[in-house]
Amino acid sequence: MTGRSESAPSSDRVRPDVAVVGAGPIGLAIAWRCAARGLRVVVHDPAPGSGASAVAAGMLAPVAEAYFGERQLTELLLASAARWPTFAAELTEATGADIGYRTEGTLLVGLTGDDLAEAGRLWAYQQGLGLPVTLLRPTELRDREPALAPRVRGGALAPTDHQVDPRLLLPALRTAAQRAGAVLVPQAVRLLSDVDARVTVVAAGCGAAALTGLPVRPVKGQILRLRAPDGVAPGFRHVIRGYADGEPVYLVPRADGEVVLGATVEERSDTTVTAGAVQRLLRAGVDLLPELAEYDLVEAVAGLRPGTPDNAPILGPLPGRPDVLAATGHHRHGIVLTPITADLITDLVLTGVPDPLLAPFLPDRFVVAADSGGPETTMEGDRWS
Amino acid sequence: MTGRSESAPSSDRVRPDVAVVGAGPIGLAIAWRCAARGLRVVVHDPAPGSGASAVAAGMLAPVAEAYFGERQLTELLLASAARWPTFAAELTEATGADIGYRTEGTLLVGLTGDDLAEAGRLWAYQQGLGLPVTLLRPTELRDREPALAPRVRGGALAPTDHQVDPRLLLPALRTAAQRAGAVLVPQAVRLLSDVDARVTVVAAGCGAAALTGLPVRPVKGQILRLRAPDGVAPGFRHVIRGYADGEPVYLVPRADGEVVLGATVEERSDTTVTAGAVQRLLRAGVDLLPELAEYDLVEAVAGLRPGTPDNAPILGPLPGRPDVLAATGHHRHGIVLTPITADLITDLVLTGVPDPLLAPFLPDRFVVAADSGGPETTMEGDRWS
Repeated sequence: MTGRSESAPSSDRVRPDVAVVGAGPIGLAIAWRCAARGLRVVVHDPAPGSGASAVAAGMLAPVAEAYFGERQLTELLLASAARWPTFAAELTEATGADIGYRTEGTLLVGLTGDDLAEAGRLWAYQQGLGLPVTLLRPTELRDREPALAPRVRGGALAPTDHQVDPRLLLPALRTAAQRAGAVLVPQAVRLLSDVDARVTVVAAGCGAAALTGLPVRPVKGQILRLRAPDGVAPGFRHVIRGYADGEPVYLVPRADGEVVLGATVEERSDTTVTAGAVQRLLRAGVDLLPELAEYDLVEAVAGLRPGTPDNAPILGPLPGRPDVLAATGHHRHGIVLTPITADLITDLVLTGVPDPLLAPFLPDRFVVAADSGGPETTMEGDRWS
Repeated sequence: MTGRSESAPSSDRVRPDVAVVGAGPIGLAIAWRCAARGLRVVVHDPAPGSGASAVAAGMLAPVAEAYFGERQLTELLLASAARWPTFAAELTEATGADIGYRTEGTLLVGLTGDDLAEAGRLWAYQQGLGLPVTLLRPTELRDREPALAPRVRGGALAPTDHQVDPRLLLPALRTAAQRAGAVLVPQAVRLLSDVDARVTVVAAGCGAAALTGLPVRPVKGQILRLRAPDGVAPGFRHVIRGYADGEPVYLVPRADGEVVLGATVEERSDTTVTAGAVQRLLRAGVDLLPELAEYDLVEAVAGLRPGTPDNAPILGPLPGRPDVLAATGHHRHGIVLTPITADLITDLVLTGVPDPLLAPFLPDRFVVAADSGGPETTMEGDRWS
């Protein structure tokens, strides 16, 4: 796999080097990077930006999301978060767009003694990995965020966990990809055989399951968008993540007054907003930050994360199909993993050789019977469900 | 004030007998009744049906809403509720429309012991007025509505408190009024002097204050609309009103699966939906009926009730202006009071003499200084605020 020849004609009729299926952040970032490297890129999506990313909060939180038993995923999250400052700067340079990249860091809090005990175990694990998590006394917490409820029992600071606004990121990536020469085709791809390109990248989120047979399943998340009254900025600056009477919740403040409050994690494939979920999220949010009670509730919405059996993304060629690359299964981590996914997949398209970083995330980790038929038939979703 | 002469020409250019300002349920019902009696009627509203009635739950609850110190209002509510069966039948006959009139009655409940004690005082007062309120043991409550939370401590039945669906009522009243000959003019009325009619009826809800100087103030109410999953009817048949940890709340089930959950009562004039109100309503609703947690949350909306200093409507001629009739200030009772308001105001238009039932509700009860100037100048809102 090499770059497009300098002398190749630029007609639309020429077979593309890369066809990307899916115009979410992953697909668009790959398209941008590939096009910027001189490849002829087409992106297929009947409704760009309508997937999980439209619902995502945009936390770049490899430290707060470093969970027990996910060491390799944590390393990938850290590596991608480290690329975010450059990625954001390049994207803003390419488009002039503000994507809401903010570096105030994340406060981790526990409302009750039980919440603090549960959170404390995780913080100790994260510190054990050498990650920057600094315990804060309640007075230190409140010095940083006076709006926190007085009864919050304790917390910690993860200064390197940042945020971006996915609803600004998406159009910026689209603009960047198009300016670099990528062509967006507003059509759905039903079968991989319908795509005519040298390499096909499947960045279709949950839709990757039907296209590839990979074990990607929808994981429903419901989130709320609040807005500070009178058009002012929210009364807090950090991303706040916490447990509130056992309910894990996050609050992401935006400069324009918006606060994203999320999120449920449900093994369901519908996108209805349910009374119980909204009530639990609001209760937890208001318990942590009482001033939220006076905020406008402007949106309640659900999205479907592309989950995988090991919670890690699926990145690389399908077994036996070096011309089809998966870039899906990002679950809760699509936004933070956008830069590294785009870089590694672009390198793979150009070189044909997977970067060592991809080794734990290759699709073939889900192939259980190496002697069965071709990959399209062996990779049934229910093998791994 | 007499009916239109039989020989009057029907041209639009002829001065109307009645101009109604406001095409909510009150204004439309008056227009319907007046037009049906042969009067030439024009209704002015730039956005018919966009006021408080679009948010209203539609409870016809003179018994459950019989509060301490509101004896005269209670009598009017009872008299109007008694007219509802005929009113509903005539409206359906005139239009063919289903308006969701349901007669399963209302269950009154208290979640905790404190809630039950508070509710019990009111039920005893209502029984003391001779109203049909029957105490129920918890087992009897659950026999009637098995979906009630097991921890609901007790309740009562108000079998004559019924319901209608305001979002079906409004278009039906509009059709009935138009079929009877009333003409709807989609224009706002800024000044009463802009209206050219023999009699002007101000049924403009909160807008009546600016037009007449009457002490009508906005009282904000936030409500939620839920929907039972899978398109089935809600798992309960009665209207349920209760206290849940001190929060007064009602739940109104509709045949199509909708449940209206309300309502806040706030001395505010904005129509934003706030996180705290939604959280409190959902918490109270789910505590009383746990299955609501699985319902879809389909709408959260706020409206402005036209409140008055004594919580009673303002019905009848402005002092010194027999040609201007108020029909406003219905506060929480606009839907239940629609039939009697329409009947009494129509009679007043035709006879010029207020029915004795109107005596406690005439506008002149708010005039404090009889020797001051004309009514337009004396009736400043702040006199009674």
